[in-house]
Amino acid sequence: MNGSVGIVKTEYAEFDVELQLESGRLLGPVTLAYETYGTLNAERSNAILVTHAWTGDAHAAGRYHEDDRKSGWWDDMIGPGKVLDTERYFVVCSNVIGSCKGSTGPTSINPRTDKPYNLAFPVVMVRDMVRAQKLLVDRLGLPSLLTVIGGSMGAMQALEWGILYPEMVRSIIPIAGTGRTSPMSISLNAVARQAIFNDPMWKKGNYRPEHPPADGLALARAVGHISFLSDASMHLKFGRRFSARDGMFDFFGQFEVERYLEYNGASFVERFDTNAFLYLAKALDLYDAAWNFDGLEDALDHLRCPSLWFAFTSDWLYPPQQTEQVTEILARLGKSVAYHLIDSDYGHDSFLVEPEKFTPFIVAFLDRLG
Amino acid sequence: MNGSVGIVKTEYAEFDVELQLESGRLLGPVTLAYETYGTLNAERSNAILVTHAWTGDAHAAGRYHEDDRKSGWWDDMIGPGKVLDTERYFVVCSNVIGSCKGSTGPTSINPRTDKPYNLAFPVVMVRDMVRAQKLLVDRLGLPSLLTVIGGSMGAMQALEWGILYPEMVRSIIPIAGTGRTSPMSISLNAVARQAIFNDPMWKKGNYRPEHPPADGLALARAVGHISFLSDASMHLKFGRRFSARDGMFDFFGQFEVERYLEYNGASFVERFDTNAFLYLAKALDLYDAAWNFDGLEDALDHLRCPSLWFAFTSDWLYPPQQTEQVTEILARLGKSVAYHLIDSDYGHDSFLVEPEKFTPFIVAFLDRLG
Repeated sequence: MNGSVGIVKTEYAEFDVELQLESGRLLGPVTLAYETYGTLNAERSNAILVTHAWTGDAHAAGRYHEDDRKSGWWDDMIGPGKVLDTERYFVVCSNVIGSCKGSTGPTSINPRTDKPYNLAFPVVMVRDMVRAQKLLVDRLGLPSLLTVIGGSMGAMQALEWGILYPEMVRSIIPIAGTGRTSPMSISLNAVARQAIFNDPMWKKGNYRPEHPPADGLALARAVGHISFLSDASMHLKFGRRFSARDGMFDFFGQFEVERYLEYNGASFVERFDTNAFLYLAKALDLYDAAWNFDGLEDALDHLRCPSLWFAFTSDWLYPPQQTEQVTEILARLGKSVAYHLIDSDYGHDSFLVEPEKFTPFIVAFLDRLG
Repeated sequence: MNGSVGIVKTEYAEFDVELQLESGRLLGPVTLAYETYGTLNAERSNAILVTHAWTGDAHAAGRYHEDDRKSGWWDDMIGPGKVLDTERYFVVCSNVIGSCKGSTGPTSINPRTDKPYNLAFPVVMVRDMVRAQKLLVDRLGLPSLLTVIGGSMGAMQALEWGILYPEMVRSIIPIAGTGRTSPMSISLNAVARQAIFNDPMWKKGNYRPEHPPADGLALARAVGHISFLSDASMHLKFGRRFSARDGMFDFFGQFEVERYLEYNGASFVERFDTNAFLYLAKALDLYDAAWNFDGLEDALDHLRCPSLWFAFTSDWLYPPQQTEQVTEILARLGKSVAYHLIDSDYGHDSFLVEPEKFTPFIVAFLDRLG
């Protein structure tokens, strides 16, 4: 029980396509980084797609090598005997387009110029990410998905799967999501964006990878980081502790929470590309399930599968009301929908921090699906 | 009823003192900008002190000249027939030390160098602001204050008045305040601070006034601005409208809320000094009514007057629980305390936007005081 999927390897699927994006622009060829855990059954009926959040990647579970100290981002959820039980399910996770973790994004080589796209990369929507994932699901020979499950931007992808490919998707599990991002969430991204634009190292996206706009990106990350936490979780972790008491009256003295944000921002620069961060922020801002439909109700009416939704009491980035707006419409439309408001102090990040609070509902839900 | 106080003039009081600050450092001489409205009665018993928020000033009511299109920041509250009725009360408002609106702050001339203080200005706490105000209250010959009233940082000052000068203060009315700032609030200020520090024009505070770190300050202001609003108020005002629909897939395209924040940030640069902004942010971060007492309960036990508190349902910067933490202690200590949670969509800024929702309670409260 509760074992690890063990040593894993990221694979890369290449698609010689011109993907038509929501903007009308074309993107191709397309590479998708992905990982799989468990085994596809003979009926090819046990596949689960895991969708990641903003700065996530394909590495959802396991370790890359024996000495790897860090396991995949949802290792608590995926493995033998875990909720997404790899002895029963074939679990797939792929990096979204627009990102910098192996899938085609602004750091990829633009075939028209043989140089990195940078800002020549087209603006993508969450719906475009899902269309790209569909290529992978087809390539893997999966006629259907038992469920599509993810948190935050992953929840948006899960919903888009249900809307775009109702004939393939047997259920969706959106966690800490929203039907459309709010002006508050857009505002926070606007600040993050401007922090990068203000950094002279950004050079309108034409920085060299070894000289990124580190100050701007670290600050942008701090804004995001704050929005993923909650007042309560910060109290638990930092309170009002000063990092050096003597420095309290020092103009540059820092509270511990401040030092933590600075440290986290600086380490984020090591692992994420600035332009990719900006493109994904844009995709989040543009996210609206009703896009190109006659409103949210029309969009949601395309769903044919049962859906299981979770929101967290302390999530102020995508607060529970935003999930409830969607689940109420689904209920009104007579769809099979279950919703659980989970009491947690960990804000938006609760889906990563306290999975044990919602996993029992998922186990039961998947069991009922067969 | 509901008239204006008319044409007003900011006065300046100079104090040849060395004010001992909480940090142990000395500040002197001290100038305080202030305005008064109404007339002090013969018994000198009708004085009310209004305390301002972060970027506020002494100009709380009236206009500077006939063509002045903008009246003082709390003109809705102060004037003949208004809540703070200038036909009954003598209302005083002074700019805090550390600010840039006429009182001594980082833009003032340092007498030891004959140059602006800039970062040589000492870190001040809210308690220091109140000690400086006490000099003014004494200079004006006010033996007591009928009430001290203010929102946000003004609420902190009101509470400090009650704690420091219980023999002088006959009541306090803290609105949208807190007993101590939370790590969430500190984090937001940390981001604002870093936005300024990242601006090469800041030059460790030694910018020339005509060349301020405009990009950094505008961004810092945007962070603050977001925290003063609420998801609901942003929905009402902007929704998800794009400022130019065609630009939605433009990398630099902006939602209306984003353009608004940018515009507001840029205009803020015209009216506020960067170092003053930073010093006041620091004062907010350091604010803790329990400072130098044996905890919050000990500090609050110094209060001898009735207090009237307001918090707003949508205020996520200083959420209602933070006010309730204080009022519950006051009640437990057997103090005369009244608290109203006001239902408003305007977030922290509700104290400026919807005064009509709480003013009836203030009228009744002041009437009872005599």
